[in-house]
Amino acid sequence: MKMALVGFGNVGKAVAQVMLEKKEVLQKIGFKPEVVAILEKDGSWIDEKGLKLQEILSLGKSSPAWKSNTVSKEIIPELDCELIVEMTVTNIEHGEPGLTHIREALNSGKDVVTSNKGPLVLAFPELMGIAEKKHRILLYEATVGGAIPLFHVAREALLINEIISITGILNGTSNYILTKMTEERISFNAALREAQERGYAEADPTYDIEGIDAAAKLVILANGILKMKRRFSDVQIQGITKVTPEMIELAMEDGYLVKHIGYVDRNRIEVMPRLIPQGSPLAVGGTLNVISFHTDVAEDITLIGRGAGPRETSSAILGDILYINKIRKSER
Amino acid sequence: MKMALVGFGNVGKAVAQVMLEKKEVLQKIGFKPEVVAILEKDGSWIDEKGLKLQEILSLGKSSPAWKSNTVSKEIIPELDCELIVEMTVTNIEHGEPGLTHIREALNSGKDVVTSNKGPLVLAFPELMGIAEKKHRILLYEATVGGAIPLFHVAREALLINEIISITGILNGTSNYILTKMTEERISFNAALREAQERGYAEADPTYDIEGIDAAAKLVILANGILKMKRRFSDVQIQGITKVTPEMIELAMEDGYLVKHIGYVDRNRIEVMPRLIPQGSPLAVGGTLNVISFHTDVAEDITLIGRGAGPRETSSAILGDILYINKIRKSER
Repeated sequence: MKMALVGFGNVGKAVAQVMLEKKEVLQKIGFKPEVVAILEKDGSWIDEKGLKLQEILSLGKSSPAWKSNTVSKEIIPELDCELIVEMTVTNIEHGEPGLTHIREALNSGKDVVTSNKGPLVLAFPELMGIAEKKHRILLYEATVGGAIPLFHVAREALLINEIISITGILNGTSNYILTKMTEERISFNAALREAQERGYAEADPTYDIEGIDAAAKLVILANGILKMKRRFSDVQIQGITKVTPEMIELAMEDGYLVKHIGYVDRNRIEVMPRLIPQGSPLAVGGTLNVISFHTDVAEDITLIGRGAGPRETSSAILGDILYINKIRKSER
Repeated sequence: MKMALVGFGNVGKAVAQVMLEKKEVLQKIGFKPEVVAILEKDGSWIDEKGLKLQEILSLGKSSPAWKSNTVSKEIIPELDCELIVEMTVTNIEHGEPGLTHIREALNSGKDVVTSNKGPLVLAFPELMGIAEKKHRILLYEATVGGAIPLFHVAREALLINEIISITGILNGTSNYILTKMTEERISFNAALREAQERGYAEADPTYDIEGIDAAAKLVILANGILKMKRRFSDVQIQGITKVTPEMIELAMEDGYLVKHIGYVDRNRIEVMPRLIPQGSPLAVGGTLNVISFHTDVAEDITLIGRGAGPRETSSAILGDILYINKIRKSER
């Protein structure tokens, strides 16, 4: 399968690395990745006969295949390949450059796999509309819950079930902070500082602690799984900055934990601190993410895993790629 | 798809019931179930043009389609259908009658979906061998973890991953007893009594509390997911009858819970009481089941759900049926 990687940061590199590592496994399941282009914001590596990934991973821009000053959105429609893997940085205000990349890819007849939340938060119905019109597939497993194959489970494994609501912990940073506050009885600010020192929180942690990242993910869950047209502005958002050690203590005395919970059903879409009973599937600590589907036949099915990390995220991206490969092969 | 249900207890009835309820959903995904036979140990309902499920569910053996004294293992090879759904009662000593049913079904060219642990615990390699030789599919999602689509996830969604080990709580009854002992600081016997009163434990609870049921499930996980030929006698088994409130108290003081944990990797296969940190994905309470896959790319992926219940189990069985339907349709 001829493909192009768009965005070659930590996640893009992990995808290339795992494809190299897993060469034999991929061969066994009938998948031969041929990466014909890797596009970055300041240039690209292109070889229509297939790039040497090992060389690019070690030489980077010193590789002879590197060409500076190319423009990804102009290259994408011209590329002779079947699949675009869009992994540029998320922007949930204007969605660029990912939004244009995905539009161009679908419009020029390519399937798309993305880890980029921005385009989906802003334009889910539009992008799915283009995909349908062009008979292309657009998958986005890595956008919510990192390594957790939650869209796959909802789409394939729970096919007979109606998913009535989705509840989850969608942001590892805020979960880490609340877990630290609970375990060590420290203040929000002290826990945030620790998260920053360990690299779990950014210098500006607003997106994580104010629930903006979780709200963006809820919008993708609402559109992708519940098939509802919800926008970011529909989400009722409350961050965790006002949670105190006293609130946590009080909750624990009654057997509860304070967790930053995202929730979406037909009537509500919200992220806020909520009390979760100890021993509940939602009561997991650390940087873990959780997604719980409430269904009409299987009852509650919960998935837990790493919500971040380049290598973990590459598992979700490669899952999507292999799924598309399987579908396209079955059509031949 | 022409199919036969073998075993019409609570699970078999739930499968029929959900197929009726979900008629429109099934139609939408291109699946038209035609149940041409329902086989019970003392007779059968047979109609090659398709049985009326609603009538059989309400009239039972008073239905005009009922015929007494038929022998399932003689009928199965003769049936004109594509799929046998084997749901008779598990026996892990001799595997019957399920073992013969599955052999006959595969040998006569039918795909098989089963919820019956016995045949798989005793004869996994043999049955998979027949399936392969006959180019038939044998699926068994409902045998471990009830409603949790764990085999589906391992087979499809984690395709790129090597699953290195599997850890889980595989029996809801023993999890309920340990949870009660933890929450109410009561003795094992008091908790067992409560489980029996609520219908979570049988009059003879040996299979659940001694780890026999969990060990059987570990054998299926070892064979089905880790592709290792492990037998029941390979499992190191320790029950929960010797767990005391004092042990639980001591564990909790250090932030741990006592859980009945099944574990399997290349070197070990065992079920025993173990200490699990609070806040771990394995620390879920009540009658819930948990399965955690340790993998080389996604790290740990954990699934939680109802381990029992006819309706919940039917979700897993119907998931398998729809998967086979999809495969067989794509081949046409």
